[in-house]
Amino acid sequence: MSGPKGRRGPPRGGRGHGPGRNPRSRGGQRGTTPIRGRSGEPPKGLGGDQVEGRHAVRELLLAGNRRTREVILAAEMDPAPILDDIIDLADEARVSMRELPRSKFDSMTKTDAPQGVLALAAPLRDHGLEGLLHSDAWDPDPFLLMLDGITDPGNLGAILRSAECAGVTGVILPKHRAARVSPTAAKAAAGAIEHLRMASVSGLPKAMGRLADLGIWSVGLDVGGDQMIHNLKVVDQPLALVMGAEGSGLSRLVRERCDALAHIPLRGVLGSMNVSAAAAVALFEVARHRASVGGARVEPEVGFEPTT
Amino acid sequence: MSGPKGRRGPPRGGRGHGPGRNPRSRGGQRGTTPIRGRSGEPPKGLGGDQVEGRHAVRELLLAGNRRTREVILAAEMDPAPILDDIIDLADEARVSMRELPRSKFDSMTKTDAPQGVLALAAPLRDHGLEGLLHSDAWDPDPFLLMLDGITDPGNLGAILRSAECAGVTGVILPKHRAARVSPTAAKAAAGAIEHLRMASVSGLPKAMGRLADLGIWSVGLDVGGDQMIHNLKVVDQPLALVMGAEGSGLSRLVRERCDALAHIPLRGVLGSMNVSAAAAVALFEVARHRASVGGARVEPEVGFEPTT
Repeated sequence: MSGPKGRRGPPRGGRGHGPGRNPRSRGGQRGTTPIRGRSGEPPKGLGGDQVEGRHAVRELLLAGNRRTREVILAAEMDPAPILDDIIDLADEARVSMRELPRSKFDSMTKTDAPQGVLALAAPLRDHGLEGLLHSDAWDPDPFLLMLDGITDPGNLGAILRSAECAGVTGVILPKHRAARVSPTAAKAAAGAIEHLRMASVSGLPKAMGRLADLGIWSVGLDVGGDQMIHNLKVVDQPLALVMGAEGSGLSRLVRERCDALAHIPLRGVLGSMNVSAAAAVALFEVARHRASVGGARVEPEVGFEPTT
Repeated sequence: MSGPKGRRGPPRGGRGHGPGRNPRSRGGQRGTTPIRGRSGEPPKGLGGDQVEGRHAVRELLLAGNRRTREVILAAEMDPAPILDDIIDLADEARVSMRELPRSKFDSMTKTDAPQGVLALAAPLRDHGLEGLLHSDAWDPDPFLLMLDGITDPGNLGAILRSAECAGVTGVILPKHRAARVSPTAAKAAAGAIEHLRMASVSGLPKAMGRLADLGIWSVGLDVGGDQMIHNLKVVDQPLALVMGAEGSGLSRLVRERCDALAHIPLRGVLGSMNVSAAAAVALFEVARHRASVGGARVEPEVGFEPTT
């Protein structure tokens, strides 16, 4: 392989259309598989407007990247330092706070375990594909994650959290037939959505064509991948890791557009991993490579603290 | 470091007490944090007696390592190859099958998405610590996973699935104050529990002492770990990876007994990963090392198919 399929330009500095926002990202949803919104209306954009869970709400307030309208707390919670953080941060940002009796609080929540904390915020910003590709003159080189139709919001959130921890520079999500950032996804992401740059696109194959134009390799994770993820040859290049949906994996067209297909070697009896575990392994393997070859100008940071 | 703390014997062939089963493993639960059982009675042993979900039930029948009493299917499901597999396998093993109307089926299930398939089986076998340590003359060398108090059954199941895929030779679970293999854990494990050798122990620190006696290193994953998981020095040795609980991490005594503490380098803003994502990264990193140094006599197998 000498370059991504259809590669035309140099890998860096390709001229695009500026950080323009996709005009459809906050607009109508024609053609979208209908998903029930908060009051029956179809959902718009990436979602993320209702955030539940202590970590998720703290990161929302800490990051301050979007407006928080209100923080709602359940009454009579046991004291916890993270609750103090949330109250101090909301106070500092002049976000209105309400305490509600448990039953009333529970009637507003949409996740299994909101941990007594809920925030209403402006929806997540959709950076659009070009917005992901032209930021900061590629320093570090693009390390994108493309999700081909993840449908379970818990998986989506878990993958976004791992992606943020692995240092991806952007996430590309399909506009249709996939989970959006629902309260369940936001909770599982534990604040990652506040720090990740995300873009929704109408067609992944078309987006992959655009990546190829800019010299960004699309590497699909696939059971039949001929390369082992540990030995991936292009990890020191601008790269998009492409993950398939639960069960069905990569769709045909997306698989065909991949410049390389990689697999994670399994050493047990089972034939497949959970998609979010596989994403974590693949993302951190790429991150490890990039750090070791110096292809990525990011420094290893702090460590690990296991939280749900 | 010249060897695990308290190392006395050679790393191989240490004599133990045979593959004896811990007499308390299926017995009373004195001192256990009460967890509600199926009909109010306290749970016994490792659990695993109710299995839900298509992958989990297929693996239960395929492995045939424990008796399946009955397979129950929801009526009027769309045809699917995996359902045919389940019916054929149950038929072959002479397991009785019942089809129930959806409402009746749903009243029996304990997971969020049982996918129309439920099996009642003998509980999982508790191999006991010695049972894990003395099997097959350490070929491959022990690659154990020790879970220090994971409380969320979904996390437990996801970790067990990753552990099986990474080729661990055994899993050590605490008898008290932790999730057991509930239907939710079994579903998330997607069949891994049928293939993994598991042991529950009353005290992890004591078990770690026994590992040290046999020359098995205990490596804890910890935010403050001084070694990077990628550069872990002892991966070609008999090893137990020790994971802490959600939120609180390793307990003090367990941390103190670890021979080494390792961290996963984070490259984003968030300070922690999800515990099951961290487990997947660490497990596959150890597996990669073991394969590359030839310390483990296991062969890389097939690839990756993302399923929930």
